[in-house]
Formats: sequence, C-alpha cells, structure tokens
Amino acid sequence: MRHITLLTDFGYLDGYPGIMKGVIYRTAPSVQVTDITHSIAPQNIQEGALVLFRSYRYFPTNTIHVAVIDPGVGTNRRPIALKLGGYYFVGPDNALFSPVIREARKSNDPVQIIHLNRPQFWLPQPSYVFHGRDIFAPVAAHLASGVPLEELGDPIDDPVLIELDEPVRTPKGWIGKVIAIDHFGNLSTNIMDTHLAEMEQITINVAGHTINGLVKTFGERPPGELIALIGTDHDLSISVVNGNASSLLGVKVGDTITVEGKSTK
Amino acid sequence: MRHITLLTDFGYLDGYPGIMKGVIYRTAPSVQVTDITHSIAPQNIQEGALVLFRSYRYFPTNTIHVAVIDPGVGTNRRPIALKLGGYYFVGPDNALFSPVIREARKSNDPVQIIHLNRPQFWLPQPSYVFHGRDIFAPVAAHLASGVPLEELGDPIDDPVLIELDEPVRTPKGWIGKVIAIDHFGNLSTNIMDTHLAEMEQITINVAGHTINGLVKTFGERPPGELIALIGTDHDLSISVVNGNASSLLGVKVGDTITVEGKSTK
Amino acid sequence: MRHITLLTDFGYLDGYPGIMKGVIYRTAPSVQVTDITHSIAPQNIQEGALVLFRSYRYFPTNTIHVAVIDPGVGTNRRPIALKLGGYYFVGPDNALFSPVIREARKSNDPVQIIHLNRPQFWLPQPSYVFHGRDIFAPVAAHLASGVPLEELGDPIDDPVLIELDEPVRTPKGWIGKVIAIDHFGNLSTNIMDTHLAEMEQITINVAGHTINGLVKTFGERPPGELIALIGTDHDLSISVVNGNASSLLGVKVGDTITVEGKSTK
Repeated sequence: MRHITLLTDFGYLDGYPGIMKGVIYRTAPSVQVTDITHSIAPQNIQEGALVLFRSYRYFPTNTIHVAVIDPGVGTNRRPIALKLGGYYFVGPDNALFSPVIREARKSNDPVQIIHLNRPQFWLPQPSYVFHGRDIFAPVAAHLASGVPLEELGDPIDDPVLIELDEPVRTPKGWIGKVIAIDHFGNLSTNIMDTHLAEMEQITINVAGHTINGLVKTFGERPPGELIALIGTDHDLSISVVNGNASSLLGVKVGDTITVEGKSTK
Repeated sequence: MRHITLLTDFGYLDGYPGIMKGVIYRTAPSVQVTDITHSIAPQNIQEGALVLFRSYRYFPTNTIHVAVIDPGVGTNRRPIALKLGGYYFVGPDNALFSPVIREARKSNDPVQIIHLNRPQFWLPQPSYVFHGRDIFAPVAAHLASGVPLEELGDPIDDPVLIELDEPVRTPKGWIGKVIAIDHFGNLSTNIMDTHLAEMEQITINVAGHTINGLVKTFGERPPGELIALIGTDHDLSISVVNGNASSLLGVKVGDTITVEGKSTK
Repeated sequence: MRHITLLTDFGYLDGYPGIMKGVIYRTAPSVQVTDITHSIAPQNIQEGALVLFRSYRYFPTNTIHVAVIDPGVGTNRRPIALKLGGYYFVGPDNALFSPVIREARKSNDPVQIIHLNRPQFWLPQPSYVFHGRDIFAPVAAHLASGVPLEELGDPIDDPVLIELDEPVRTPKGWIGKVIAIDHFGNLSTNIMDTHLAEMEQITINVAGHTINGLVKTFGERPPGELIALIGTDHDLSISVVNGNASSLLGVKVGDTITVEGKSTK
C-alpha cells in the first residue's frame, strides 16, 4: 500500500484536510493518507519545516509527504515536488523543505526537484487561494498512482532555502534557542546531544532559572521539578515533571538558552 | 476501495468519532473512513450543512457521507439515508442535507431518500443519545458492504429543508452575510463570484471598513492589509494578509456585508 | 484488514501521533490505524483508562489498541502487551488497562499479559522519553504482522491495577461521582442504569441543583433545561438541552452526585 502524509496549518475546523484527502482518493482510491499535523501556527513556515524534518523518516520508504504552509499561495512562488532519501515531498517552494534538502545535500544524497508547471496533473481551474486542494493533493495522488516525478514538471535546482539556527560556541559551552514547544509544554532547543557529548558538570540557564545536570527520564525527579533531558529528537529539552515548562517559565519559541560545563577532552 | 466520511460536532476529546469508525470497521473492515471535521459548533446544523455542501463533491463517486449534528437524537426526528449525484448521505432528517438536496432538485437530478426504520441494520438496543454510533455508523457500513439503499428502510420524499440565505439585490449591488469563519479568520460570505460577474469598480463594506476592489491572491498586498478576494468555494471572502480578519473586524457569522459597483451590462 | 487504534495524551500539535502511524506502517504497511483520541488530559491515566474501556469493544475482533499515557516513560515501569476478550492492548503497565483487565477477570475470561522485554521488536536505540514511537508502535505493528503475542516478551500476571470508584449505597439511593465531562459539557457519572433499575420517583442532586426524574432524550425538554438521562455507556448523565451542563453547574471530574428514590422491590 502506498502512503501519503499531510502537514498543514489548516486546523481541524473547516474540513480543508478532509477535502484534500477526498481529492487524493478520487485519483488514488487505495492509498493510505495520514495526518502528521494540521496545527502548525498559521503561516509559520519555520515551524512546519521543523515538524516535517523530525517526522518524515519514520514513514515507509516511498511515502509522499504533502506539506502546505503557504502564505504565498496564488503568487508566483513555485509549486514543487522533490525526491530525496527514498521519500517524496510536495508543496510550495518557500523553504518548507529547506531542512530536508540541506540535510540531503550535506550527505551528498541526490535531490531531484521538479517545478509543478503541468496543469494536466491538477484539478481543473485551480483557485488562487487553495493549492493544497487544487495542485498539491492531485499531484501527490498522481505520484502515488505511478506517474514518474519527472513527468509532473520541469527540473529545477534553485529551491528556496533558509539557514537553520545553529547554537553558538562559547568558552564554557553553548548559546542556543528554544525552537519548539510541544503539547505538554516541553521546550525543544537547537542544542543537540552531539553538542554536549564532550562536556560534563553541565549547568543550563533558561528564563532566569538554573538547572544542574541532565536526567534521563521524567520519573527520576518529583512532580513539579524543572529538569533538562535529551528529548525525542536527540535535542536538549527542558521539562517540568508532570507539569508544563512553557507555562512555568513563560518561555516562547526563539528565547535563549545557555549551557555551560567542563570539557572532557 | 469504498470510502466513508464523517462530519460531526463531537470534537476530538471523547473518542466518539473513533468509536463510530470502530463500528463501521466491524461490519466493513476494508472501507476507508475519512474525517471531514468533528469541530462543527455544538448543535449548529446550518454550519454542518454548509461544510458538508462544500466538501462532498471532492470525494470519489459512491462515497458515503455520514453527518451527525443531531440535537433531536432519540426524539421522533427521522434517521435517513439518501442518494444523489453519485453520492450517499446518512444522518438525521433535520435539514443537515438541505443544501445538497436543494441543489440536486434545482438541477433536476434524482434524489432518493430512505427513512431508516429497519433495526436489523443498526446496533442492537440503540441508545437514545448516540445514533452516530448505534444507527448511522452501522447503516453506512452496511451500505458500503453492498446492502442496497432501498433495503435500509421505506422511501420518503418530504425531508426537512431550510431556505438558504441568498444575498439581496440593491440598486448598486448586493447585501449579503458572513456565513462562515475559517481557522485563519477568513470570512466567507453568501455572495458568489457569479453575483459579481457583471460588476466593476467594486467597493465592499463590512463592519465599518471599506475595501476597494478584489485581489486575486494574498500575496498582492502587504502583511496586515484587509483584502477581498474570491475564496475557496467561489465565494466573496474577506481576509487580512498573514493575519486574522475575524479578530481585526470583530465580525461574527450572520453579520452583514455590502457590495456596490458599476454594472458592466 | 487488521486494525490498530491509538489513544494518547499527545494532542494534535506536534505530529507525535502521525509519527507513531509512520512507524506502524513501516512494519505493517497495510494495517488500518484509527485514532480513538489524542486529547486525554496530560498524564491523566484514569481518564485514558475510562475512554479506552468505553471504546475498545466497538472495534473489530483482533483489533490492537495502543494506549500511551505514560508519565513513567523511561523509568522501570514495564512496557506490556495483553490479550483479552478477543482484543489486544499495548502500552505502559501503569493501570491504563486496569478496567479492561478487572472486567475480564470478573467474567473469568482469560487474560494473557506479556512484559515487552525483547528489544528486537522495538526501534533500535529507543529514547527515554517517547516509547509510543520507539516501543509500543513497533510492537503493535509486529503483532499486526503475525508475530505471536508470547514471542514479544515474558509472561507476567501482576499488572498494575487500580480500584474503580464504585458508587456508595445509601438508605434511599446512591452517592456517586462525576467521572468524565465530554465535549458538549455532559457529565458522565459512575452510577449506572443497573444501579437505578429497582428505584422509582428518582431525585438527583448535583452542585446544589435538584433534578426530578430521568428523561429518555434531549428533545423531551426545552433548550436550556437541566436534565438527567442514561448516557452513551449506560451511565447516569447530567446535561443541559442544547447547552453545557459543566459550565452551568461549575462541576468538575470527581464532584459528588446523589440519587434518591423509592424502592420498587
């Protein structure tokens, strides 16, 4: 069975994700469509790019990931489809796929990108406001039905990319940022376990609070305690045991976090 | 593969949509069930009818649309199933299907309506409070499994219908209404592109604001600007570029919108 | 087709449920995964246990129910899988499955419980924070693909169980509790229709309000009226017709409700 995922900022109010599934099933009735999320903050391309980057690899090879955070819908921003690392991606060319493309290029994995400029693979008379329904869903369905990627449009090699915020090295450690806050209020940062690999006696500062050391699990500390640990994606994460770190600290995405420690080298 | 959709006001809190899917899969294990939405405002039949009307056509022919906004559950309001335009619908006879029935009748398309009065196609001992689970889900599953519509009950031809609010013609244009507000805060109105087809130099008034002319895409204007454009369903829509028109204007469903312009005839 | 359900406290924000589906589909590409809900209150094992208990039976026999409300993730709380009454369950051993196990034992139905201690059925290098992705999803997929339950780990017979709150008998009736509040604000209680079977002229007291008698349907009383009726799960429920009983009464889960009446014996 062929798999398609959806990741959008459409929310669950209006039936827009359901409509995209309907369009897909019309062309590819036996595909399996899975929601990654439709709760990306409206027009927040960076948040969508991060969630997609952290999710795509868990799906079966050949999965087609359709991502639509699309403030430029209807303008001359290009609709694109790409293939890398055994996965397909379909959506607007607005940096939503920047992390996956950068990662593939860094590993010298081939990246094939197509400008979706052949209307025969779209719904007839596409609107100027809902390309998720009118272009991206039907293109994904055609891909799932066996149309080769290169038939969907002309190849390009200049996709819109953005720099990822990397943490900054300091004499004693790192200055990083909160890059996501999850449903539980856990703070995810751009400091990875690899950044901390050669440090010991770690101290973390965030929003005026100091945390000494990392724990491995929530259960090591009593409910209500502020802790630091390696999160679901090898990222330094800040949590409150059985609580909500984001509420407790009043922290938002983009806020600074610093780590200091002794080198083990 | 046979498709069933669900559209309800059940929300995502309690597992009620999941239970309906379980009931469907027990009888029709290989059907594909898709959520249109479960976020219709509680008991808001008109909102549910509108979202269903705007969504149903995008699904494959023969899709069975199950819609449950059902304040009269357990009373003598009839459970019904209908067929029109190649689609099936299952739910309460309370005007939820009024727009699809009116549209079909207007086009002289045949509409076949069945009063679901044969308990052998329901769960045993149906409750008085959850016909989504006890009647509509099992009936949809039987339909999907090949039971003919006419076996599910007796034919009727007097479904509950409501008038759709049509915009009112004025000497210079139209007076319409906001009929839906989406997740982005975009206002959808009952003024359609066809109403505006023979007008030029259009001015729109809504909540004390004046908008001159229509744009085609969000991207034509700077972030924060109030714009009017033709929306996802050929409807006159009011938006704020990268913002929320509903919050900015303090507008709610039912509020008035006027359009004036010069005739091109 | 084989069915798997998911019930978690992950919310719809982060893509965690989507990632679990991806992991399942990698191993079992043709399974059908259904959400029961991801809106259980964070770390609220009792709420998760109740929703699961009320839902599981509606799915096809052999469905695998994956439930993850898991404050002890990464500690020595055991990951388990169990089989009872024709259904499978996968998740943490923290009382989430207590109601289904107690019910089966009460009926002398066999319950087979396995400690999931064989890492060959997990993702490699499981994290300390997301066993839904790293252990429970892959185990469910292996079960769905035909791996026998007993191969997934060693049998145990001492799962964590909790007492269910039973209502207390009084001379004139029962003292019970609100155990859940649904999306509509309906109050579900632990007083069941069986508790009320031999009572008549019933009076219900909740939050300083008195309700005389039960109705069968919402439609019997005018909008806005406070009513008592038998709910979706044979439970005494308190509702407001076309309104929200929880908001009106200011009641929360755990609050007391009393029923008095005359014995019919």
